[in-house]
Amino acid sequence: MTSFSSLADLRAACLGLPAGNARAEDAVAVREAQLTKPPKSLGRLEAIVGWLARWQGRTRPRLDRVDVLVFAGNHGVTAQGVSAFPAEVTVQMVANFSAGGAAINQLARAAGANLKVAALELGRPTADFTTAPAMDAASFLAGVATGHDAVSPDADLVCLGEMGIGNTTAAAAIAAALFGGGGSRWAGRGTGIDDDGLARKQQVIDAALARHAAVLGDPLAIAAALGGRELAAILGATLAARRRGIPVVLDGFVCTAAAAPLARLADGALDHCLAAHVSAEAGHRALLQELHLDPLLDLGMRLGEASGAALAVPLLRAALACHLGMATFAEAGVSDKPG
Amino acid sequence: MTSFSSLADLRAACLGLPAGNARAEDAVAVREAQLTKPPKSLGRLEAIVGWLARWQGRTRPRLDRVDVLVFAGNHGVTAQGVSAFPAEVTVQMVANFSAGGAAINQLARAAGANLKVAALELGRPTADFTTAPAMDAASFLAGVATGHDAVSPDADLVCLGEMGIGNTTAAAAIAAALFGGGGSRWAGRGTGIDDDGLARKQQVIDAALARHAAVLGDPLAIAAALGGRELAAILGATLAARRRGIPVVLDGFVCTAAAAPLARLADGALDHCLAAHVSAEAGHRALLQELHLDPLLDLGMRLGEASGAALAVPLLRAALACHLGMATFAEAGVSDKPG
Repeated sequence: MTSFSSLADLRAACLGLPAGNARAEDAVAVREAQLTKPPKSLGRLEAIVGWLARWQGRTRPRLDRVDVLVFAGNHGVTAQGVSAFPAEVTVQMVANFSAGGAAINQLARAAGANLKVAALELGRPTADFTTAPAMDAASFLAGVATGHDAVSPDADLVCLGEMGIGNTTAAAAIAAALFGGGGSRWAGRGTGIDDDGLARKQQVIDAALARHAAVLGDPLAIAAALGGRELAAILGATLAARRRGIPVVLDGFVCTAAAAPLARLADGALDHCLAAHVSAEAGHRALLQELHLDPLLDLGMRLGEASGAALAVPLLRAALACHLGMATFAEAGVSDKPG
Repeated sequence: MTSFSSLADLRAACLGLPAGNARAEDAVAVREAQLTKPPKSLGRLEAIVGWLARWQGRTRPRLDRVDVLVFAGNHGVTAQGVSAFPAEVTVQMVANFSAGGAAINQLARAAGANLKVAALELGRPTADFTTAPAMDAASFLAGVATGHDAVSPDADLVCLGEMGIGNTTAAAAIAAALFGGGGSRWAGRGTGIDDDGLARKQQVIDAALARHAAVLGDPLAIAAALGGRELAAILGATLAARRRGIPVVLDGFVCTAAAAPLARLADGALDHCLAAHVSAEAGHRALLQELHLDPLLDLGMRLGEASGAALAVPLLRAALACHLGMATFAEAGVSDKPG
């Protein structure tokens, strides 16, 4: 078990991140230029292979073991009427994950990935953060440790996602605290709240920002005060993957917001992360822009569960298959010179 | 063997297209609404399953057999210096396809698809269309028939693509003839031509439009005069798939331009076609807009070979896996009512 004894201990870990292997990335670029295609004609696929190489530290990256990690948590802020679905749905959906009936079960299988679901104290929701910090330091650090420990050193790639009724409100509050703009900039419809609910959600976020004004300069304190257990776990998993040489695929708005405090602590802290997609949740595009993350897909999805992240995996596999399997101009006897 | 005895015979086939099975699409929407997720939260994935259902005519679509068809041809217009690579590369790349060394070999395998490559008289390039029609009616119809016959009635999905040094010039000329705007709107860098080459390419297209002004009102005559054998085959394959109840995934600029005359002949003629991606080739985005096709991916690719089309297949498989494999709210005991 990894454990961080204090926020200061966690902060130190967040500030001492490995930089990735630039030579592995360069080696990929050298081979890429020799493959039988016009230079750069595979576009983003070529960049993906270089990124895998850098963060795996391998000149020949691999995707033999891909883990999809879904963290689930419950939120006291649901008492404020911010979600279209009742809080019981979190437990019900975790059971659905176990039974194999959810979207992520199908998507993980289609991606050739292992699905692991971690439910974080669903019977003990976080506090309603309009009136108190969502978590105290110990609870927050326990969530971070759960995520950190969920990342196997044997994984070649980790996809992160979440389930938690109410958690788009927590995510929007974190985004507002980190990047400004208040509830009107970051609140979206989540699972499908109506106009009145959306207005309430914006007010809830603004109230939370006012309540926790004293800690808004500290990204980890923001994650504890406004986040949730599953968001803390995503932060911990993102950190662990960086330290263990494992690239990460982030899912949608909640997942991105959960990892965002790392980027506020240290420039480049999410360089080992790929944004799988931009979701239809209102704040996601702006959040990705704030983080300088360029999403791979834009398919109007807004489900969570790591669904977008898992959907990106076949594209990464295809990119890698091209790099590893294509012939060079010399091998194939194809002219690589202007005619 | 399918054969069209005349352009009039082909035109009649193009004007008598089946409309697709709306009831199959509706049945998919009914099931989709019962699955354990917020309504519409899988975004484009849900629409894809409905589209498969409509054009396969099946309430439970399948992707058991996916064929990737790549057509190759040579172009007399290469004499005008419009390509960065010599015309011999077409033959060399077809050999590379046979040896398994090209990008499409890796991408088709990753997609679980069968790759079939048809080389169309590579030793007999089309005529330089700045001075004569690229093909006479018989040659054009032979190309169309090759593509038409390449579509197996047993396929559940067909991905189309091409290889042909010089064919972005042909594609741009077709796009200009169908949608206006001349060489400056439609010419791109193809395999990587420089600024002088690009200016020459624009002039070549404008010269071809002037040379063939008399036929620019007839989409099939445009395809014969300005296209190429592999583009004719793509048109034929797109037509055959529609007639046989097989959805089509189109690749990039050349592939889209090859199918575009069908849409000019009959509204909705490409409704059974999905645009896999928008390529980095200059004219592709505008061409997709003219055709009201919304590309699935935008990854800066510009390779051809059906590479973008094959890359889209895993996304279609994932969409279908969700639809067929997910539990309903009732099956899973998940609340589907507002809380």
